[in-house]
Amino acid sequence: MNIRRFSTNDASFDQDLKALLAFETAQDDQIDNVVADILRNVKTRGDAAVLEYTQRFDRLDAQAAQSMSQLEIAHDELQAALAGLPAEQRDALQQAAERVRTYHEKQLMASWTYTEEDGTLLGQQVTALDRVGLYVPGGKAAYPSSVLMNAIPAKVAGVQELIMVVPTPGGEKNQLVLAAAAVCGVDRVFCIGGAQAVGALAYGTETVPQVDKIVGPGNAYVAAAKRRVFGVVGIDMVAGPSEILVICDGKTNPDWVAMDLFSQAEHDELAQAILLSPDAAFLDAVQASIEKLVEEMPRKEIIRTSLQNRGALIKVQDLEQAAEIANYIAPEHLELSVDEPLAYSKKIRHAGAIFMGRDSCEALGDYCAGPNHVLPTSRTARFSSPLGVYDFQKRSSLIMVSSAGAQKLGRVAATLAYGEGLQAHARSAEFRLKG
Amino acid sequence: MNIRRFSTNDASFDQDLKALLAFETAQDDQIDNVVADILRNVKTRGDAAVLEYTQRFDRLDAQAAQSMSQLEIAHDELQAALAGLPAEQRDALQQAAERVRTYHEKQLMASWTYTEEDGTLLGQQVTALDRVGLYVPGGKAAYPSSVLMNAIPAKVAGVQELIMVVPTPGGEKNQLVLAAAAVCGVDRVFCIGGAQAVGALAYGTETVPQVDKIVGPGNAYVAAAKRRVFGVVGIDMVAGPSEILVICDGKTNPDWVAMDLFSQAEHDELAQAILLSPDAAFLDAVQASIEKLVEEMPRKEIIRTSLQNRGALIKVQDLEQAAEIANYIAPEHLELSVDEPLAYSKKIRHAGAIFMGRDSCEALGDYCAGPNHVLPTSRTARFSSPLGVYDFQKRSSLIMVSSAGAQKLGRVAATLAYGEGLQAHARSAEFRLKG
Repeated sequence: MNIRRFSTNDASFDQDLKALLAFETAQDDQIDNVVADILRNVKTRGDAAVLEYTQRFDRLDAQAAQSMSQLEIAHDELQAALAGLPAEQRDALQQAAERVRTYHEKQLMASWTYTEEDGTLLGQQVTALDRVGLYVPGGKAAYPSSVLMNAIPAKVAGVQELIMVVPTPGGEKNQLVLAAAAVCGVDRVFCIGGAQAVGALAYGTETVPQVDKIVGPGNAYVAAAKRRVFGVVGIDMVAGPSEILVICDGKTNPDWVAMDLFSQAEHDELAQAILLSPDAAFLDAVQASIEKLVEEMPRKEIIRTSLQNRGALIKVQDLEQAAEIANYIAPEHLELSVDEPLAYSKKIRHAGAIFMGRDSCEALGDYCAGPNHVLPTSRTARFSSPLGVYDFQKRSSLIMVSSAGAQKLGRVAATLAYGEGLQAHARSAEFRLKG
Repeated sequence: MNIRRFSTNDASFDQDLKALLAFETAQDDQIDNVVADILRNVKTRGDAAVLEYTQRFDRLDAQAAQSMSQLEIAHDELQAALAGLPAEQRDALQQAAERVRTYHEKQLMASWTYTEEDGTLLGQQVTALDRVGLYVPGGKAAYPSSVLMNAIPAKVAGVQELIMVVPTPGGEKNQLVLAAAAVCGVDRVFCIGGAQAVGALAYGTETVPQVDKIVGPGNAYVAAAKRRVFGVVGIDMVAGPSEILVICDGKTNPDWVAMDLFSQAEHDELAQAILLSPDAAFLDAVQASIEKLVEEMPRKEIIRTSLQNRGALIKVQDLEQAAEIANYIAPEHLELSVDEPLAYSKKIRHAGAIFMGRDSCEALGDYCAGPNHVLPTSRTARFSSPLGVYDFQKRSSLIMVSSAGAQKLGRVAATLAYGEGLQAHARSAEFRLKG
């Protein structure tokens, strides 16, 4: 396999690294226009529009999609999906959910206040969003783990109503996805998808209640629709292709590292898997493992394309330099396959999730370690965070100025307001001054 | 003055309220195209492009904007601006900064970890953004308080380098803004503005370092540029017109309430000021105060237009109903001018900032109470928060699975991965299983 190899000693290293990471998310104007049309229609015509689009795009006959209530899945059906799973799968789903819940409970923010000497109270009130929409893709990219990772933080935050939408092309329902919804306590499920589902959640229809935020992955139409309704409702980040960066000292089994790279590369052709090591012989060994193991993989074509087009094995001078490069890349997933990984992790400032030690492969985090698998991609870990409970809570500032406080603060505020030419601000503060 | 009056008893109340709140932020395609061009140019040509645009848009001759270093303001000049202020203004600025800092220090997030029985460690590492850009408008909308509110949270978060850009049309510098930058410890200041300044911060030039996030208010070009560079860098919310909602039991001096409404209305013609009260006679009294006081206001034309086009005095049945309406509106600023405001505030789920009690006028919060004045507008308080220290920190998940933990988690992960058809994920987990 023709996987890119380069070294930080190369004169062209900086350019090579930039070229490797370059990824333009060109927005498709044609998709955007189609989406604008769909949203406009759903906003004005509600259920009727959603039903028409669902019949057309999800190939449901008029009989099967006559009313929105027909497209809602009853709780019984969700529970039946869960009960119908093989015991091993059901147990795994429940164990994963339990661990994800336990971890996310630590993220809950609480309100706080403090009172100053003159009796002025200041603080921050933390409340949950009222209602959240969860988009779940249909077809091949339908992942029950994604239901867990999006629904559980919302429920832990205290969101009162969680509404899931999932398209069922040709009427086919994914039992694992329905089971996951049951495990998470999703409140309502509608079998709709695409931009029309995003529109229904954002604007509300006769049947689908308007939500305050929409989260969850989707195709280009869903992403374009989310961008367009942002502001009317909140949205989560629109994710780029998935990435892994492995830093290894050369002492991990090369088969393990190769398979960890595959576990990212198998997602799609645009996924990016990069290995940094100061040990050139180890890079050779991993390359050999890649050649050997790829043949056994059912998704070998995707893995091959991903590794050839976007992967790299990079020789670094030492682990210090590897950490610097990691901070530049700010990878979605970072594996530190080294001795003393906890101490080493202190050098990392920017990464979505940091997997420490040779046993901590990314796949454990994807499913059941506890932390969220929705992570910032494309270097956005420089300024953003994993999806969490905090994405389903928000803050209100609390300000209760005492009469004594108003004397002191009023003078300061009035001075600054006059300086800015905002006289009503100044007068409003001065009205509270005594004598 | 023709200010809208209506009542929750009106048959058309729901429609009236929706019509009152309706505000479409139509994006201007022409502005967007101009901005796209500017950004492309700055990205490829760096300083040279920024200098050309600055000469053109800020009317600086080629001499005055020959090099970017000429457009950087030295620390001495910032300190001189502070020293040159009248003592009262300097004191007010410093007192406000100190209070804003004290409040925001309570928002600092800390890292956390926990260790499970089998030795698996999970947690979250909190780090500051490396470098942040702060946009400050030039001309009439140049507010030193805005420098404080954007810069202080970034510095409290631990941002290493804070870079301010502020256009100086015709070469004119706002001394209050420079003084505010000195008070906040802004690291570098460039006299550039518009989409070209946003581009310089987002992509970096030979002189302006690339930042990780851009915050601060700006005109339509700046807003369009921020939207376009989002993803390359983080941005804060693009704010709509400012709003205040006052809930009053009828026992506050009507002049005070009228002036509080003015303090919002004077911002611009699109600002929205609404009063809710169960006391019809009080609404009459406030209306009389409005008529009386507006004549004295230097910005009376703006206030009149804002109140006539977007203001309202609304009669409610009782305070219970007022709280419900407030939660629907999710106002940027909410004044609770009632007895027992703290108890009453528990009914409020959605608001940017809650001002409790008759002495807590919004103007105090705008300048110096402590909480931030950058708040969610246009009903977005349903899902978003005031600007805070948390906007300049981000989280990385920490996962260190013990060898024992990998046995337990590996089985769960492999089961779920096979269920999703992701065999490399499953194999990667299984490699860590012993025997």
